[in-house]
Amino acid sequence: MNLPATTPDPPYYAVIFSPVRSGEDPEGYQRMALHMIELAMTMPGFLGIEHGEGLDGFAITVSYWRDEAAIKQWYENAEHRAAQAHGKAVWYRQFELRVAKVERAYGFTRPTSLLHLAPRE
Amino acid sequence: MNLPATTPDPPYYAVIFSPVRSGEDPEGYQRMALHMIELAMTMPGFLGIEHGEGLDGFAITVSYWRDEAAIKQWYENAEHRAAQAHGKAVWYRQFELRVAKVERAYGFTRPTSLLHLAPRE
Repeated sequence: MNLPATTPDPPYYAVIFSPVRSGEDPEGYQRMALHMIELAMTMPGFLGIEHGEGLDGFAITVSYWRDEAAIKQWYENAEHRAAQAHGKAVWYRQFELRVAKVERAYGFTRPTSLLHLAPRE
Repeated sequence: MNLPATTPDPPYYAVIFSPVRSGEDPEGYQRMALHMIELAMTMPGFLGIEHGEGLDGFAITVSYWRDEAAIKQWYENAEHRAAQAHGKAVWYRQFELRVAKVERAYGFTRPTSLLHLAPRE
């Protein structure tokens, strides 16, 4: 899995999931989170996923999808539905879920030569 | 600052910034990052910001904005421009920047009573 996610030219969709974990059942949460990523990667229209951890149980997971139909299919997946229900009951204290259409994107990669020559303090 | 960000009903915009840091000048990076958040909060049309850290220098920062005009004004801010240039030269090895229109959003907060009553292992 590439980070940042390697995505095609826009338009495509981003699902921005911003939870605050409850702190309950951390091992079960970790197992589910990894399994959901594996499962998402098998879904039609999946383009990539990025994840970061904040303070006090906050996290952001952004998954990228070809279109709304792909997102709908993912949300209706039976295993994913079960994980969503368990998340509300146990793992998450709060979350915000946003579906956004990526309209433009810009990528930057520093030339390797500049990385090697860059001064280090 | 609330996490997740407290945002109005859609539509509004998300700027998804997904960098891989170079590892150079970490103190300067931290100072800049905090200052840029403070500066963004003063900009017209700023709605909120969320940040998470991944592995190996990867991070995600999602900032939310009222409209494209607000994003444009933020990107053209002189201090922000200087930080962008320094980021490409020193702090970032790579990044992906995506501008997305949030079309729908769903928030969940677990009732406090359920949190207190939830079994802990």
